[in-house]
Amino acid sequence: HSLLSSASKASRNLRVSGYAQIHAEFGGTPDARWNGTDDRIFIRRAIAALQGDLNNNMAFKLETELSSGSLGEKSGHTPRLTDAYLTWKVAEDFKLQVGQFKSPFGRAQLAANTKLPLVERPLVSDRLTVGRQVGVALNGAFSEDLPIDFTVGVFNGTGANASFTNNSNLMTAGRLVARPVRQENFGWEIAVNGFHYAPKTAGTDDRTGWGFDTALVTGPLLTEAEYLRSNYSGPNGTPDADGWWVATTWQAAKQWQGVVRYGTYDPAEGINNDDTRLWTVGLNYLLSGDDLKLSLNYVNGDSPSGQDDRILSRLQVKF
Amino acid sequence: HSLLSSASKASRNLRVSGYAQIHAEFGGTPDARWNGTDDRIFIRRAIAALQGDLNNNMAFKLETELSSGSLGEKSGHTPRLTDAYLTWKVAEDFKLQVGQFKSPFGRAQLAANTKLPLVERPLVSDRLTVGRQVGVALNGAFSEDLPIDFTVGVFNGTGANASFTNNSNLMTAGRLVARPVRQENFGWEIAVNGFHYAPKTAGTDDRTGWGFDTALVTGPLLTEAEYLRSNYSGPNGTPDADGWWVATTWQAAKQWQGVVRYGTYDPAEGINNDDTRLWTVGLNYLLSGDDLKLSLNYVNGDSPSGQDDRILSRLQVKF
Amino acid sequence: HSLLSSASKASRNLRVSGYAQIHAEFGGTPDARWNGTDDRIFIRRAIAALQGDLNNNMAFKLETELSSGSLGEKSGHTPRLTDAYLTWKVAEDFKLQVGQFKSPFGRAQLAANTKLPLVERPLVSDRLTVGRQVGVALNGAFSEDLPIDFTVGVFNGTGANASFTNNSNLMTAGRLVARPVRQENFGWEIAVNGFHYAPKTAGTDDRTGWGFDTALVTGPLLTEAEYLRSNYSGPNGTPDADGWWVATTWQAAKQWQGVVRYGTYDPAEGINNDDTRLWTVGLNYLLSGDDLKLSLNYVNGDSPSGQDDRILSRLQVKF
Repeated sequence: HSLLSSASKASRNLRVSGYAQIHAEFGGTPDARWNGTDDRIFIRRAIAALQGDLNNNMAFKLETELSSGSLGEKSGHTPRLTDAYLTWKVAEDFKLQVGQFKSPFGRAQLAANTKLPLVERPLVSDRLTVGRQVGVALNGAFSEDLPIDFTVGVFNGTGANASFTNNSNLMTAGRLVARPVRQENFGWEIAVNGFHYAPKTAGTDDRTGWGFDTALVTGPLLTEAEYLRSNYSGPNGTPDADGWWVATTWQAAKQWQGVVRYGTYDPAEGINNDDTRLWTVGLNYLLSGDDLKLSLNYVNGDSPSGQDDRILSRLQVKF
Repeated sequence: HSLLSSASKASRNLRVSGYAQIHAEFGGTPDARWNGTDDRIFIRRAIAALQGDLNNNMAFKLETELSSGSLGEKSGHTPRLTDAYLTWKVAEDFKLQVGQFKSPFGRAQLAANTKLPLVERPLVSDRLTVGRQVGVALNGAFSEDLPIDFTVGVFNGTGANASFTNNSNLMTAGRLVARPVRQENFGWEIAVNGFHYAPKTAGTDDRTGWGFDTALVTGPLLTEAEYLRSNYSGPNGTPDADGWWVATTWQAAKQWQGVVRYGTYDPAEGINNDDTRLWTVGLNYLLSGDDLKLSLNYVNGDSPSGQDDRILSRLQVKF
Repeated sequence: HSLLSSASKASRNLRVSGYAQIHAEFGGTPDARWNGTDDRIFIRRAIAALQGDLNNNMAFKLETELSSGSLGEKSGHTPRLTDAYLTWKVAEDFKLQVGQFKSPFGRAQLAANTKLPLVERPLVSDRLTVGRQVGVALNGAFSEDLPIDFTVGVFNGTGANASFTNNSNLMTAGRLVARPVRQENFGWEIAVNGFHYAPKTAGTDDRTGWGFDTALVTGPLLTEAEYLRSNYSGPNGTPDADGWWVATTWQAAKQWQGVVRYGTYDPAEGINNDDTRLWTVGLNYLLSGDDLKLSLNYVNGDSPSGQDDRILSRLQVKF
């Protein structure tokens, strides 16, 4: 109905993709994420995505979670947008990202869902990172002489699928990764990251998160470790929280991976008997890389509600 | 961000498909499914699906209902996942299905929405079947000497888009179909099916459903009949429920079908004046098979709220 | 499972498309649509659509809004169906549209979201039009001697994604557009439209909306104006509401547009101090037509809550 018209041309290289993760779980409650869950079969994630290139420097992605996307018991799962962003290569080594996407904080958090060596992230990662946010980030990735990759961003701070800030206060977040060793079968990477959010709503403390993590590849072994911490300041005197995890993935054969991880989480420093300590061992059978993968995990946790364990199995299909 | 990488290749033969069913309805309340509904135009179903093959033996499907998917009055329809499964041909005649899909119980229930001869399923089918569930099923289909097809499965029993069981108790369900006669213009199929679910939650009875059904093709005539029953046992003494339907579809010409159906439903045996008896006559004009179909149905029902009738018309577009 | 089968063939020319509009906004509350909103970044719209042709005369569209689609503060955005319709060219100049789509009322309302010269529609357009509805419409478009385009339709009157009417009362709506001048750089179009809806629910007034609008193209200038009014009659004696807007878009260069708009809105005639008057100036940078567009708007409004202004910026990606 507009009298002005504009020639619309199809974007280049439009792709439809997605994946599904179907779980069967048995046993108890190794940590609070499984509170109240019995044995069950469920769709852990079902993802459909559209992505494409607008030109040589710009690309977009729209991704929707069609299932629950959560560990807790839930009925009536409804879809919701996960990723919705444009990336713009503003200069040779610099990329701007605008929209809804994962905030640059947390090694395990930033790992792709389809590439996790164990089916669930460490408890401390789920608790102390800030996940997807709406905002703007600048990424600089220097691949030649200076093997450094940094991302800094500002975000609403109110999470995904929200259209507001608290009192116009934005969250800032950033991550710096260095890769000192990058040989064929020997690689080392170290990273630091942090975020700060001061919503200034009544009865809310300011929150500062920070963490550091590292990964070491030695032949068929990948060893990763991460420490995360949240400090609070304000009227409530919320105690600080922290935790860490270390994991080793052994690529035993082209199609087999063995994984072991230990992790801790302390939700409130200075308060007794609130810690969780978790051992997880896992086996992955990669029928076709990450496109078709069977995973079996055993989780044994010592949490405030006692010691308990659980078996998690996943069938992953990626397309 | 993972130091381990895996070659990801596109799945074979990725397809986008879907359909829409647009209704115009006029008249009264032939059965309780239309309680409180006036004349109206609405999107009965709007479906979008992604499916593909992972290899020669494995295929997946993700399907989403974008509209209400229900007969009752509703506003604020939101999308939700319908199908999310992987099928795996584990041996020549055996197929495993994992994820969220229709449980193997009920002839009318298992018929595809786009192929129903009348626009709505029989009342007893909507009331006494258990629809989509999350679980695992094994299908054996023997097409040569022994014309038998069976499916058995275990499910959460808590319906679609739920991620829990009640006290770890699973629902079991199974269906067996025999096709004694399979000639060009003369075919006969008989089936039995059942399910059992004992949630063992406070104040809940165990439920056992069973049914049998048959279909007979004689030239241009398809005659189908089904009996369904739910038995309850437990602290509440819930009365049993049952019902049946019989329908004949006449392929009068390539593009025209005439259909007549009679059905009953008794929600509580031993209680008077709670039965529903329904006559439905229908006409389908298939402009392009099921891809573009116009349907006109007249429903006359004798239900606890009295005798009433309604005209249902459907425009179906499939792509 | 049906013994009757129908050859299903793929629809022609199936297309996947969509767009995203990412906003950053700063400042106050020029009108009530921004009540309570602070500075923020958000996904104004994220759209995915499937469309295709069934044959030479029939086409369909399914379109879903994946984000909030609204201006107000909101969290937990969930997707919902926007368009779901079939168009059928019933004769040379006549087209039938069936399903859920925009009702034929309001110039700004009917303009495509991706082609709006300013990022938000005029306040009066958002307040006094009836948006998407479920129903049937007939469009006649005569392009030769008689440059007229009309659309008339009947709808549930209960909005999008609803499956009911109020007491079987339908809404009627219609729009007539004439294009007296259609030269290369000089075009003129005038239109009238109206709707009537009498829900007859307790305590509800009948509503009649009407409006007229015009557009004039003179070289690089597009000037548009619209007047809208809602009259009420019934037990509540709801006061009438009206408003108008006029806007000029200057295509300054192939990639640059400048826009200025003035608009008013009076929600209740005869009541003092409830009017809103809005000035908006905007600049569009079209990197690739409407497919990749940056917009910057300044809105200054005099509303019942006082004079205030706000800066709106949009990044639009269309694929």
